[in-house]
Amino acid sequence: MKCSRCKEPAQIALPSHHAGFCEPCFLEFFRRQLERGIRKQKLFDHSDSILLAISGGKDSLALARELKAMEYDLTGLHVDLGIPGSSEKARAVVEAFCQAHDIPLVVVALEEEGIPIPEVKRRIHRPICSVCGKVKRYYFNKLAQDRGFTVLATGHNLDDEVARLFANTLRWDAAYLSDQGPLLPAEGGFARKVKPLWRISEYETAAYCFFTGIEYHMAACPYSEGASFTRHKKLLADLEEASPGQKLSFYQSFLESGRPAFAASEAEHGPELTPCAQCGYPTSAELCGVCRVRDALGQEPAA
Amino acid sequence: MKCSRCKEPAQIALPSHHAGFCEPCFLEFFRRQLERGIRKQKLFDHSDSILLAISGGKDSLALARELKAMEYDLTGLHVDLGIPGSSEKARAVVEAFCQAHDIPLVVVALEEEGIPIPEVKRRIHRPICSVCGKVKRYYFNKLAQDRGFTVLATGHNLDDEVARLFANTLRWDAAYLSDQGPLLPAEGGFARKVKPLWRISEYETAAYCFFTGIEYHMAACPYSEGASFTRHKKLLADLEEASPGQKLSFYQSFLESGRPAFAASEAEHGPELTPCAQCGYPTSAELCGVCRVRDALGQEPAA
Repeated sequence: MKCSRCKEPAQIALPSHHAGFCEPCFLEFFRRQLERGIRKQKLFDHSDSILLAISGGKDSLALARELKAMEYDLTGLHVDLGIPGSSEKARAVVEAFCQAHDIPLVVVALEEEGIPIPEVKRRIHRPICSVCGKVKRYYFNKLAQDRGFTVLATGHNLDDEVARLFANTLRWDAAYLSDQGPLLPAEGGFARKVKPLWRISEYETAAYCFFTGIEYHMAACPYSEGASFTRHKKLLADLEEASPGQKLSFYQSFLESGRPAFAASEAEHGPELTPCAQCGYPTSAELCGVCRVRDALGQEPAA
Repeated sequence: MKCSRCKEPAQIALPSHHAGFCEPCFLEFFRRQLERGIRKQKLFDHSDSILLAISGGKDSLALARELKAMEYDLTGLHVDLGIPGSSEKARAVVEAFCQAHDIPLVVVALEEEGIPIPEVKRRIHRPICSVCGKVKRYYFNKLAQDRGFTVLATGHNLDDEVARLFANTLRWDAAYLSDQGPLLPAEGGFARKVKPLWRISEYETAAYCFFTGIEYHMAACPYSEGASFTRHKKLLADLEEASPGQKLSFYQSFLESGRPAFAASEAEHGPELTPCAQCGYPTSAELCGVCRVRDALGQEPAA
């Protein structure tokens, strides 16, 4: 197989794009896909100050490296979940990476915030992934707001987005379908949220890390059981294999024709948000979800 | 396993309904699912005169037997496609069935109409399944209108509907998503169209035929290659196996939350229909699709 751009021997095949690339042309291709994703959905520009959530996995590190190389105003945010045997490794990877790439880094340690995830798991009898996700989003938003960033970015890739879209579509969950996408505008106390990797697959970010020598934190979270989400990803992989390009076209046509239909019908039904009585975070209840977790753990309110 | 209703030994397991049944209770269950599908979507009542398209496969025969037993005003319509080695068998099955069950039957032979499917396949260079479907729907509608039936019914089952919904959703095809469902009201020269088996799976109609001794036409159409439609059915079967009941809940939640969103956004965009200049059938072009097929075959217009 020859590289689709320069005709030298290809080092990676990308059936979804009906293409194959040598290493330099793949990196060029990756950059262009990222630029296209940013431009097409008007995610941000060089006047924005971007806070990027960096978990230490391949997606967030690949995105951090590229955004830095593209000279965006970039700061990293790592939430240390406090899971023994896992979180300290992820944090060390992120700290070393940011230092090596000259990216300013903010670390929030949930241990210091009084809500380490192992304690939450022990005390709160709801699926831990959903509670942990809520806590992380809380700090992503809070840091972005408190420190005046104009954009909050995450490393969600095409596979993440498609699996989530698929799950929401199986339920025809109009509330989620009305605002899922790579861009959520700033609104009512929330920073603008963007997912610049929305056009790029998991396989492509893994290849990017391989070619650029990024050493990322590989271990899956010890608490994730991966039930239906993983099953859907497998099913969507089968679909992609049978029809290369299907995932991206499913997601793109959703953004073009699906989301607008739900956005129109949901416009008037969204819940009213007010500041949390304890911490001021926007919420549809009296206390926000994280303050309720804190209360359940018997912790003092956040300063 | 015991029957979920009467506690006698079960003869069929239905994981989708978290149930198992003995033969009599399965037939009772089948009837109730059908009644529920008719009532919930207000498909028709005993004042309607129903024209049911009967191909000779398990779905249309099972539906014919049930609707007759429920004392609806029922007439069968069989379109003989004129495919050697296949159509004559299907037609014989339908004729024998309708005679045995005292159901009046109208047969349209495409050979006599001047557009037998083998000739269409030879001369028209488009996917034959889509052209054949168009021709069948044309005669379904035409007969229902010409003979004053108030309802046109087809034997599409839950698997058919879910596979079609899935394909339309992968493309987010707003025009199809705005009106897919078990009921399409009479409109602009089209009879009211209904799919009474929408809650019932292919497996359930096959079991129904087995238990009631219906001998149906089993052979797949020799022209169908079954590409993506079959692949999607396989994938949806995997999904159902992992989460029993998923297909019906996907389809039902679409009817509740998906379709209304698309119907609202598509209301003003539907194409204007006018009568075909040759045969009077409603069409968005000057000639309807079937008259264009006729013209391509060098046939005279229909009387």
